[in-house]
Amino acid sequence: MVRKPTPDDKFSFGLWTVGWNAQDPFGAATRPWLDPVESVHKLAELGAAHVTFHDDDVVPFGSSDAEREKILDRFRGALAETGITVEMVTTNTFTHPIFKDGAFTSNDRRVRRYALRKILRNVDLAASLDADTFVMWGGREGAEYDSAKDLYAAHQAYADGIDTVAAYIKEKGYGLRIAIEPKPNEPRGDILLPTIGHALGLIAKLEHGDIVGLNPETGHEQMAGLNYTTGLAQALWADKLFHIDLNGQRGIKYDQDLVFGHGDLFSAFATVDLVENGFPSGGPKYDGPIHFDYKPSRTEDFDGVWASAAANMSTYILLKERAQAFRADPEVQEAMEAAGVFELAKPTLNEGESLADFLADRSAFEDFDVEGVAKHGYGFVRLNQLAVEHAMGARG
Amino acid sequence: MVRKPTPDDKFSFGLWTVGWNAQDPFGAATRPWLDPVESVHKLAELGAAHVTFHDDDVVPFGSSDAEREKILDRFRGALAETGITVEMVTTNTFTHPIFKDGAFTSNDRRVRRYALRKILRNVDLAASLDADTFVMWGGREGAEYDSAKDLYAAHQAYADGIDTVAAYIKEKGYGLRIAIEPKPNEPRGDILLPTIGHALGLIAKLEHGDIVGLNPETGHEQMAGLNYTTGLAQALWADKLFHIDLNGQRGIKYDQDLVFGHGDLFSAFATVDLVENGFPSGGPKYDGPIHFDYKPSRTEDFDGVWASAAANMSTYILLKERAQAFRADPEVQEAMEAAGVFELAKPTLNEGESLADFLADRSAFEDFDVEGVAKHGYGFVRLNQLAVEHAMGARG
Amino acid sequence: MVRKPTPDDKFSFGLWTVGWNAQDPFGAATRPWLDPVESVHKLAELGAAHVTFHDDDVVPFGSSDAEREKILDRFRGALAETGITVEMVTTNTFTHPIFKDGAFTSNDRRVRRYALRKILRNVDLAASLDADTFVMWGGREGAEYDSAKDLYAAHQAYADGIDTVAAYIKEKGYGLRIAIEPKPNEPRGDILLPTIGHALGLIAKLEHGDIVGLNPETGHEQMAGLNYTTGLAQALWADKLFHIDLNGQRGIKYDQDLVFGHGDLFSAFATVDLVENGFPSGGPKYDGPIHFDYKPSRTEDFDGVWASAAANMSTYILLKERAQAFRADPEVQEAMEAAGVFELAKPTLNEGESLADFLADRSAFEDFDVEGVAKHGYGFVRLNQLAVEHAMGARG
Amino acid sequence: MVRKPTPDDKFSFGLWTVGWNAQDPFGAATRPWLDPVESVHKLAELGAAHVTFHDDDVVPFGSSDAEREKILDRFRGALAETGITVEMVTTNTFTHPIFKDGAFTSNDRRVRRYALRKILRNVDLAASLDADTFVMWGGREGAEYDSAKDLYAAHQAYADGIDTVAAYIKEKGYGLRIAIEPKPNEPRGDILLPTIGHALGLIAKLEHGDIVGLNPETGHEQMAGLNYTTGLAQALWADKLFHIDLNGQRGIKYDQDLVFGHGDLFSAFATVDLVENGFPSGGPKYDGPIHFDYKPSRTEDFDGVWASAAANMSTYILLKERAQAFRADPEVQEAMEAAGVFELAKPTLNEGESLADFLADRSAFEDFDVEGVAKHGYGFVRLNQLAVEHAMGARG
Repeated sequence: MVRKPTPDDKFSFGLWTVGWNAQDPFGAATRPWLDPVESVHKLAELGAAHVTFHDDDVVPFGSSDAEREKILDRFRGALAETGITVEMVTTNTFTHPIFKDGAFTSNDRRVRRYALRKILRNVDLAASLDADTFVMWGGREGAEYDSAKDLYAAHQAYADGIDTVAAYIKEKGYGLRIAIEPKPNEPRGDILLPTIGHALGLIAKLEHGDIVGLNPETGHEQMAGLNYTTGLAQALWADKLFHIDLNGQRGIKYDQDLVFGHGDLFSAFATVDLVENGFPSGGPKYDGPIHFDYKPSRTEDFDGVWASAAANMSTYILLKERAQAFRADPEVQEAMEAAGVFELAKPTLNEGESLADFLADRSAFEDFDVEGVAKHGYGFVRLNQLAVEHAMGARG
Repeated sequence: MVRKPTPDDKFSFGLWTVGWNAQDPFGAATRPWLDPVESVHKLAELGAAHVTFHDDDVVPFGSSDAEREKILDRFRGALAETGITVEMVTTNTFTHPIFKDGAFTSNDRRVRRYALRKILRNVDLAASLDADTFVMWGGREGAEYDSAKDLYAAHQAYADGIDTVAAYIKEKGYGLRIAIEPKPNEPRGDILLPTIGHALGLIAKLEHGDIVGLNPETGHEQMAGLNYTTGLAQALWADKLFHIDLNGQRGIKYDQDLVFGHGDLFSAFATVDLVENGFPSGGPKYDGPIHFDYKPSRTEDFDGVWASAAANMSTYILLKERAQAFRADPEVQEAMEAAGVFELAKPTLNEGESLADFLADRSAFEDFDVEGVAKHGYGFVRLNQLAVEHAMGARG
Repeated sequence: MVRKPTPDDKFSFGLWTVGWNAQDPFGAATRPWLDPVESVHKLAELGAAHVTFHDDDVVPFGSSDAEREKILDRFRGALAETGITVEMVTTNTFTHPIFKDGAFTSNDRRVRRYALRKILRNVDLAASLDADTFVMWGGREGAEYDSAKDLYAAHQAYADGIDTVAAYIKEKGYGLRIAIEPKPNEPRGDILLPTIGHALGLIAKLEHGDIVGLNPETGHEQMAGLNYTTGLAQALWADKLFHIDLNGQRGIKYDQDLVFGHGDLFSAFATVDLVENGFPSGGPKYDGPIHFDYKPSRTEDFDGVWASAAANMSTYILLKERAQAFRADPEVQEAMEAAGVFELAKPTLNEGESLADFLADRSAFEDFDVEGVAKHGYGFVRLNQLAVEHAMGARG
Repeated sequence: MVRKPTPDDKFSFGLWTVGWNAQDPFGAATRPWLDPVESVHKLAELGAAHVTFHDDDVVPFGSSDAEREKILDRFRGALAETGITVEMVTTNTFTHPIFKDGAFTSNDRRVRRYALRKILRNVDLAASLDADTFVMWGGREGAEYDSAKDLYAAHQAYADGIDTVAAYIKEKGYGLRIAIEPKPNEPRGDILLPTIGHALGLIAKLEHGDIVGLNPETGHEQMAGLNYTTGLAQALWADKLFHIDLNGQRGIKYDQDLVFGHGDLFSAFATVDLVENGFPSGGPKYDGPIHFDYKPSRTEDFDGVWASAAANMSTYILLKERAQAFRADPEVQEAMEAAGVFELAKPTLNEGESLADFLADRSAFEDFDVEGVAKHGYGFVRLNQLAVEHAMGARG
């Protein structure tokens, strides 16, 4: 049996996950939206440490300032009672029809200004709740048609929008970092910043890029057929992995938002191995909250909702135990060594070797036994089989 | 009928395209490899301006220096006779078994050193032929298994490898720029730098990134379900579109390398519209060669090979004419205006508007008629239909 | 300019298409649902001949019998006024929460019985409106999890459900045929009968399969990366192409339901070529209505809705003209001949040739010039380029 | 640790799997082709029970009759020495250039006749070796271009070809059944009979379809984003699951042919659960050999080849143990009951219930508590989490 989660596990849930009303493009809601206060209490009972939310998840769109304060007071009460903290806040710039062509990149400048104001207001809220991370998922920044956008202006407007928010955070002295969440498509035909890579590319051009990083979601990368773990690794290498969104996806199709591990289970093993154990030869490590961004299936009632919340945490804990055993297994270490996994960290040029030295090293090229070395087998299949067996708990 | 291409069209072909022996993973070669000299002559006849090649396309792997010089002399003769020039050179670091685990990121350091030497040698050749661009497609930089790589070390080794080549180019004073060609998978299960975005992200961290940009290929982006034109746009926005590889792909599957336009034809219209007409409100424009990286289908004999080479150019010319008519049509301009395409280039903040000013503008938020503006229709479908009809030559 | 559609074009629209309220999984409705009577009038003005609907599109779920009759009377009035006829009716067994685990294959037998009754009631309505086709899209017949279903029982229940409806149609003497609409996924993780092929396989096992065929949708097949035209061809070969749903999809992703031709335009050319011109050497031909099952983009207001409806018809008419010119072009006919397109219809065995004769024909095997014949080029690229140029209106 | 396989496990390997020379579309061979006799001996040592092969795997294409007999004698010797038997034989109609446009559906009738002869000759060999199954993978039956084929003629020629072979088998009185292996694409752009469903649809129209069934391959179905286990289930429901090809694939991309379980591990659990445990409420069960059709990665030497062969069997054995424990767990049985898994096998109509009776049952419709029943949760997530934990060996 799997051990129960505790706050030390740093598990975090979006309020829009368990709270979702289970409406989909072909079906009406099968559950009511959950009261955020109820979700906070229930998640605390299940062992979570944090919650996160979009502004509209807690305060209905269009609430007056007075209503907003009243709602937030009650919400803060629930946090205080349970010890749950808010580690991340994000802004809904995709549900209301005003955002149907995007927020930062809507062709309508009035919408861009309105969106920016909605976001800045929410930055204040995030700071007031001591959140560390401010996520931006630009789900409507995109198009169905290539003719619909000036794509230079769109990228510039996107960058300007993020820079304005970052400048505001700095001006206010908030302890917040922005994390961009990429997604390739849905609800738009093509979404700008479709992958971890595209977001890294944009961040590199920002004026205030130092406080802008990434919040990659498992399913979003997999919707482009990309390897989520490799994406996390590039984000870590660029020192930009600010937050993670774990869930499950079964291949290239609509956004499924399954429980973590209920999608590609063996890929989830690799993700947890990286997050918990880091790179084999060292390097930067993610140490933020373990955040789940999933949707309890539409077939489930509230018992199923809470079973699904617990399932995310159980699967993570199991995978963590398996990944730790994998790395601790001497046979695995030997197989990694044999496969050259550790050798890759050794720089290609010798210490102090100049280009001239290198070009003069006949052993590297002229006298290199190409055909002989080419026969060498890497042993990757053996190592992968060890990983499979560890993931399946079959090696002690 | 379509007009014939001329060198002013700047059409360019890889010698490995028309020259390919039509061997695939399930079938033996159906044609012999073509003599590069013959290809140069034939491409010149058909109206091409340039050729490009991998070292091994012209000089067989493992040739002695003497053989190499002899072969290159003959090749230079063909260039001189035809007026064809070499605009790009690239290195084959994927065919020989020595590269089975990659070149810059092989777990075997000896392979990394060998690959670097092979590449530097080829940089000299590229410079000697007055090429402008040195492409790097790291087709074997990747893995089938998540356990096979230290992914921090892999990204670092990749970056170091590119930086070393860039440093060499600068040291030698060559007029070359490096262009990275992303691909998501095949021949490896997951390839590092899988998309335009990931390459932009890596380039941003290089020491010599100023001379490193991109060579995006139509089919490679489409193999990840991404919009090629949007990718080109982000590369242009980042000032990194150094070269292009045009071809055709019919969705997410194996790398098809069809004739340009024989994949997603309407997407090709958008690509040519961007390349030839630029962004609607101005901005950087691609002005390099129109390079085709495709494979004549395995069902074809040499007549089919040359018909396919001509088809790339004809389709491009047709799409260019259509795209020019599209932009010149007053109804299109009006529809673009109505859809807000030009408005997106107008900065979201007013000139000189401070954050304080913006936060004080009640018309942007407090007094904004959200529900009223939300009813506004963007007219994207009408504009797209105009594009479809122009692409089909149905509007005069 | 494209000619205007007339009823002779047999264009047909689902009332749920233009009527859609533009709500998606991440966004609220941007338009109200349209009154079906208004849609009928407007579609008639635009040149359509028919409409189709789900029961709930016209009569809200849960209406009393009296309300139902009143609504239907008004609807029949609109049909009479406009001359629009109802060629197909279908049942909504996916929107209401009762169907969250399917209709014919819900694990809850009470739901299966309820669904069957809802469908039979709707069969009566379809017959009373003189519809020819009764479509069944089992959008909720499926699962997210492999453990959730007894997959033998599920296929059996699906087959039994269809057979019961077919038996009812026969018993009543209705002039209706059932058309199954396959879809691979969304809104379920995996949907039963995911493709044209799977539906053909099931139909072959039905007791009353003689009146059961297919209603393939462009985007649904393309969501599995399959070739829609090839799928239509297999359905025609099996004499089972009872109806078609045309729309647009840009590759393997969520169900986009774009305007026909706004997805893969060149594939749409092939589809129209098959539908209008039939197979090159003859065979069964589709002669039913040209039915569009698409959704006007969420960015559009009602002007955009009607522009999108018109766009479906304009694009179809254009493609039809192009396809007719393609087949009529002597150069195309010659290229088809050269490519062996007509030769494929010639049986492989000679007329009256027994297996013994065939095995004794040394010219077929022992004396066959394998290497010589293998050199023959098929000329497929040339023929495809002719198709591209015809699709683009570039050949007179 | 995983127990060693024995012949009772009925594991079977294609000789082209371990024997593959590791050449891919972008790289030269990294290993020599293995001598089939060596493979037979080695597979016997590892615990396999059977081998399978394409004609050309054992007897090189174009061998004289005398050479052929000599080679086959030596091969039969290896079988006799090891106790390995040949359970399936298949024909290579895809490697040689003569088949570049297909075999049964080549536009060139001479090729169709030649292919049929090659296949019939191989049927004799299969029978002489007491094989049970004759697989047909029509890897080249397809096209890159929609204009290249008369798709009616193509389906007819495909059906005729299979029927001719089936007629021959019957005429000869061989104890062979034909198993069609579907694949959506690669090496052709679109392959005919792309999925299990399409093959079922074609078989239903054959004259001799009684001895024609399916050989579905894990990766081939997954290349279309389809659920392999659901496909097997439909084939079983249609009584057509004659053989299986197990391997691994990581999503929609080129054909990876990984070790079974090295692709989608959790989907492999579901597959083994179906194959070993059958449907929850009974029904037909697969009882043929457990056949692996995979390729040892190109990075591996021969040690890696044999490690990969062993990995297929170990993973299967592990998954079998896990699946048996899953079904035996009382909590799982209770969760299946609660989720209605067993209820789905109960017919929707009561025994003897006529349509009139059913229509008169007000409890089924008029008096049915739709809203109340709709609130019922199915508990699928809980059941799936039990499956995940069993697959991971986390429940005792």
